[in-house]
Amino acid sequence: MNYTFSDRVSTLKPSVIREILKHSSDPSVISFSAGNPAPEAFPTEEIAVLSAQILKENPIGALQYSLTEGYPPLRDTLKEYMKTHHQAIREFDELIITSGAQQVIDLATKVLCNEGDVILCESPSFIGSLNTFRSYNVRLRGVPMEDDGMDLTALEQALKEEPNAKFIYTIPNFQNPSGITMSLEKRKGLYQLAKQHQIIILEDNPYGDLRVSGEPLPSIKSMDEDGLVIYAGTFSKVISPGLRVGYAIAPQELMQKMVVGKQCSDVHTNILAQIICDEYMKQYDYNAHLRRMKDIYTRKSSLMLGEIEKHLTPKGITHKPVEGGLFVWCTLPDGVDMMEFCNRAVQRKVCVVPGSAFLTDETAPCQSFRMNFSTPTDEQIVEGVEILGQLAAEMIPES
Amino acid sequence: MNYTFSDRVSTLKPSVIREILKHSSDPSVISFSAGNPAPEAFPTEEIAVLSAQILKENPIGALQYSLTEGYPPLRDTLKEYMKTHHQAIREFDELIITSGAQQVIDLATKVLCNEGDVILCESPSFIGSLNTFRSYNVRLRGVPMEDDGMDLTALEQALKEEPNAKFIYTIPNFQNPSGITMSLEKRKGLYQLAKQHQIIILEDNPYGDLRVSGEPLPSIKSMDEDGLVIYAGTFSKVISPGLRVGYAIAPQELMQKMVVGKQCSDVHTNILAQIICDEYMKQYDYNAHLRRMKDIYTRKSSLMLGEIEKHLTPKGITHKPVEGGLFVWCTLPDGVDMMEFCNRAVQRKVCVVPGSAFLTDETAPCQSFRMNFSTPTDEQIVEGVEILGQLAAEMIPES
Repeated sequence: MNYTFSDRVSTLKPSVIREILKHSSDPSVISFSAGNPAPEAFPTEEIAVLSAQILKENPIGALQYSLTEGYPPLRDTLKEYMKTHHQAIREFDELIITSGAQQVIDLATKVLCNEGDVILCESPSFIGSLNTFRSYNVRLRGVPMEDDGMDLTALEQALKEEPNAKFIYTIPNFQNPSGITMSLEKRKGLYQLAKQHQIIILEDNPYGDLRVSGEPLPSIKSMDEDGLVIYAGTFSKVISPGLRVGYAIAPQELMQKMVVGKQCSDVHTNILAQIICDEYMKQYDYNAHLRRMKDIYTRKSSLMLGEIEKHLTPKGITHKPVEGGLFVWCTLPDGVDMMEFCNRAVQRKVCVVPGSAFLTDETAPCQSFRMNFSTPTDEQIVEGVEILGQLAAEMIPES
Repeated sequence: MNYTFSDRVSTLKPSVIREILKHSSDPSVISFSAGNPAPEAFPTEEIAVLSAQILKENPIGALQYSLTEGYPPLRDTLKEYMKTHHQAIREFDELIITSGAQQVIDLATKVLCNEGDVILCESPSFIGSLNTFRSYNVRLRGVPMEDDGMDLTALEQALKEEPNAKFIYTIPNFQNPSGITMSLEKRKGLYQLAKQHQIIILEDNPYGDLRVSGEPLPSIKSMDEDGLVIYAGTFSKVISPGLRVGYAIAPQELMQKMVVGKQCSDVHTNILAQIICDEYMKQYDYNAHLRRMKDIYTRKSSLMLGEIEKHLTPKGITHKPVEGGLFVWCTLPDGVDMMEFCNRAVQRKVCVVPGSAFLTDETAPCQSFRMNFSTPTDEQIVEGVEILGQLAAEMIPES
């Protein structure tokens, strides 16, 4: 039989980049290409204790069908947490549990965009979100990144030129892939522009709790007096990604539609995992856990940055500062072929992600690549960066 | 702010039926309106043992990011099981894990249908699937049900009249809501029609293992020599719905697109739950478990049917035979207002689902209502059906 696919998935093609990434599952390869949180940061023993407790005390509650909106006690715990610690939820907002933050991205697009509509996003941006947007047959308009976040002049221009723009997608903290953190001034400016143009902001904050230096900045959602912001949060980076528990905060009217959308997608999120997250926040010292994570990430990011500065910086490879998150964004000098660099690195068993993977237009010129410091071991970081340094020495002429 | 929603969710409106169903969460109400499997059938102790074992022996594997296609050992276990026990997977097929069978429905629609396309479905059919279809802005064409399954003459007519029909949706075993099982002859006839018209069949089989009488019939997927069938299976009714683990079997080319679609939806399914299902199938006697479930469901369905025949049949309320599944489909005599019957039942604290909820056109005339026997206790079944009998006596004139 000849299968005919929908337009939305016909446009999603496997890319050259995937070919490179295939190698990252080879155990003999040092992978700097993943986005996995550091496994040593998972509270594995606590999860084992909680899981046993829940399955003993409330097995039916943990295993029966549940509500699409999420496990009510977890919703209450998160509402309280987001109010007290982040001032990121107001009277007019609602909070629901999702199957990871990816589902927030999916549901926001589902309820807001018709085919052919436009989404304004940082370029580069998280490839997972860009692909979700693409799966709705929307058009992506990239807004260039500056060192302190989105170029607001370019954003304003885009808002004027794109009457069918439905929302602005941003990762303000330690953006994936660039590592860039949006300044307070730009957060305020972005919010004002959105208000002026009456457009929704989708604020994705998976890494917010993983700050390794500098002072925390308020979320855009915390400025949301007008009901413009959908906030995506997740336990993936702070408790466990395998549990697939995320959450969305948005004005009730928006949330009602997202709940209907979620019911059509997966009915509800795994309930045992939701109870584990709730009991973890209740029974353990969540802030102490975040401090432990911070220590792990501070050490790993410093190690990688040190090695980069030793082996890559002298070759003219620059990198963005790292205040948190999981990634370092490196840029090769002009004239060096970035794809060739990534391909030759793989041949030497070191895998990094070509920066073009994260562009709204994957064919645009790009000199950057993304490196992850949370998944590899310390030894792999030292060895892998040294190999990249040797490769750089061969490919980059002495200046 | 005034929110503007996408066309696909603007058409999904809360219905009159939801108003009735709201009452089913009131603990003083006897709910025959749920679709929950019997909680006493969950292997709760075994799940607790397995969960402890997995979190002790392989915590990182259970908690880290995993593959979109699913946990490889579970995929292998299910492939073997579906091959050996159901002959429902061939060389050209692939099997992936999904977040419940609802996600199979969602992904099939995502990869096959453009907006405005047509899906042919049994009418009545499962409201969850119908709403998922509607969320893709497709048009539903209902095919009437006969006592042995879809009316194939009507289906053939529909296939001729609908050139944009992308697939035929069927629940061949103990259909939700009608309880009807498609005969072997019709399964073969349906497959032949699909082959002749080169159209895909989406076979949804959540209840197949819950047969309480009669002989098992081969799935349509087992006849699929031509790669026409997408099969949706699930652990929701046999292990636990709260774990949200389902699976899809389909030709590889289709499956590749569904995997891309799943990546955009939720990245992957909760991995701890996948390992629990795999280890359950490996470490315990799965067939003995299915026999225990069969005993529970045989007893509960017999109890409800006995009460119905005592209290409702004498009033002229007919019901479809029950060979398995979770539901009894009852039909009021002509001239009795079905919605009024359901509304008055709720006032007397008994909740059933108005049959119109399951129609492709909810406004079409309907005399039927759906009753569930798996969730209520034995006492609730006896008491609730008696109350419906009293109501029927008041609303239905003696003939």
